[in-house]
Amino acid sequence: MTDMRRLLLTLSYDGTRYAGWQWQANAVAVQQRVEEALGALTGETVRVTGASRTDAGVHALGQRAHFDTRSRIPADKLPFALNTHLPPDIRALEAREVPPGFHARFDARGKHYTYRIHNAPHASALFRSLTFHVPQRLDVPLMQNCLQELTGTHDFAAFEASGGTAKTTVRTLYGAQLARSGPTLWLSVSGDAFLYNMVRIIAGTLVDIGMGRVSRDAFRRAFASGDRLDLGVTAPPHGLELTRVFYEGESPACKQDFDMSCANFLAGEISP
Amino acid sequence: MTDMRRLLLTLSYDGTRYAGWQWQANAVAVQQRVEEALGALTGETVRVTGASRTDAGVHALGQRAHFDTRSRIPADKLPFALNTHLPPDIRALEAREVPPGFHARFDARGKHYTYRIHNAPHASALFRSLTFHVPQRLDVPLMQNCLQELTGTHDFAAFEASGGTAKTTVRTLYGAQLARSGPTLWLSVSGDAFLYNMVRIIAGTLVDIGMGRVSRDAFRRAFASGDRLDLGVTAPPHGLELTRVFYEGESPACKQDFDMSCANFLAGEISP
Repeated sequence: MTDMRRLLLTLSYDGTRYAGWQWQANAVAVQQRVEEALGALTGETVRVTGASRTDAGVHALGQRAHFDTRSRIPADKLPFALNTHLPPDIRALEAREVPPGFHARFDARGKHYTYRIHNAPHASALFRSLTFHVPQRLDVPLMQNCLQELTGTHDFAAFEASGGTAKTTVRTLYGAQLARSGPTLWLSVSGDAFLYNMVRIIAGTLVDIGMGRVSRDAFRRAFASGDRLDLGVTAPPHGLELTRVFYEGESPACKQDFDMSCANFLAGEISP
Repeated sequence: MTDMRRLLLTLSYDGTRYAGWQWQANAVAVQQRVEEALGALTGETVRVTGASRTDAGVHALGQRAHFDTRSRIPADKLPFALNTHLPPDIRALEAREVPPGFHARFDARGKHYTYRIHNAPHASALFRSLTFHVPQRLDVPLMQNCLQELTGTHDFAAFEASGGTAKTTVRTLYGAQLARSGPTLWLSVSGDAFLYNMVRIIAGTLVDIGMGRVSRDAFRRAFASGDRLDLGVTAPPHGLELTRVFYEGESPACKQDFDMSCANFLAGEISP
């Protein structure tokens, strides 16, 4: 045991082909592919523990996961070696050594998610697997106003899917932003923890508010009462990205994450 | 013939699965899928003529193509109907009626291309099919300076692939821009016409300049002499997108195109 090390990986993946993060009986999960790759690299049987059990179809820019190994490979070299064993829709981006008691999930101080909506008459051919297509006109300022009411510490019971098992539904949103650029709306939320499907319910509710299907009053009533009945639908998984998981000493202010997010296909202006 | 109409389509496609725009003997081309969809929609045998014969793997946000039909379907409804017959990686975005003599290719006044580079130690899992991965450090200001020397009217013989058949190699670049956002570098060029592989050679040359493989002097010598030998490699097709084709009366200033481009996964800043 003396030479056992615990390493923390940062992983990005396109969730399209996977049954989610966690091992499934009859489908391929991201966790399985990562464990297989670590096994091939180290010759050990490796179990990885992810910070977040992302659902089927959900993407990650910065999932994090810890594992134990006797391999002597330096942490900074590990992602390069691991990527030779991973499929191209899963990439290891970083690795660092952490104390033996460190836990990727329980030690997480917060997470940052991005939800992308393609708001145009026709779906995006190029970004079809990364965006939720909403063809209807949306009242974005109203959506932004409602979103701001969610920041801070609140009981988010109204935004929990029925399968949720959290002991308390009180959560803190450090920041939330909804921005439009051309046909793309991106929702970014950063918080201490999230209830089951919380970001997808926020996204779906905001879309329903933007379409006029859910009024601001109904939104406020549901939020205050913790009753989902008045709220909107759960937006589909493929618009969602786990952008970052952060730990003690890491900033929840996500400028850097945004810079990384989605490769930032930044709008610009050509000078003719 | 009296009720024959000519329509101009705007099409977006993810080139990953296709052998390019043009019909191929033993592979599926985008043109084939569009003609099949128009055939299914109209009951006619339809031939479409694209403005640009994009190569295998090259994407399009705004390819344009004309075709003739006796169908009475209104132009503004056509994209919705056509999309029900197209695979999700090809989308019709717009259609309008044009005069019978209009030609999508010969009447084009210019084109706008975007080339995307993922400049980070590891490839992008999420954007692997839309970005050229360059792990090396790049001197972006030097690349930008060299790029600016290409704007205006010049003989671009040094930027033509050997298969080119153009009568003259003089072209005008209306504008060119190289911008970085996080790990993404995007190159945008707008011009009256482009030689075979010209944008991919510009992209490959700029990358070689950025890495120090091609000096600014060698770049200038090659550009002046029309000799490709000193220039960089041709960057791979999957980083390239035909962003827009424009006609008489349409602006070559591509603000709107950039807004559309790549769904604009715009960088932002969260307020924690």
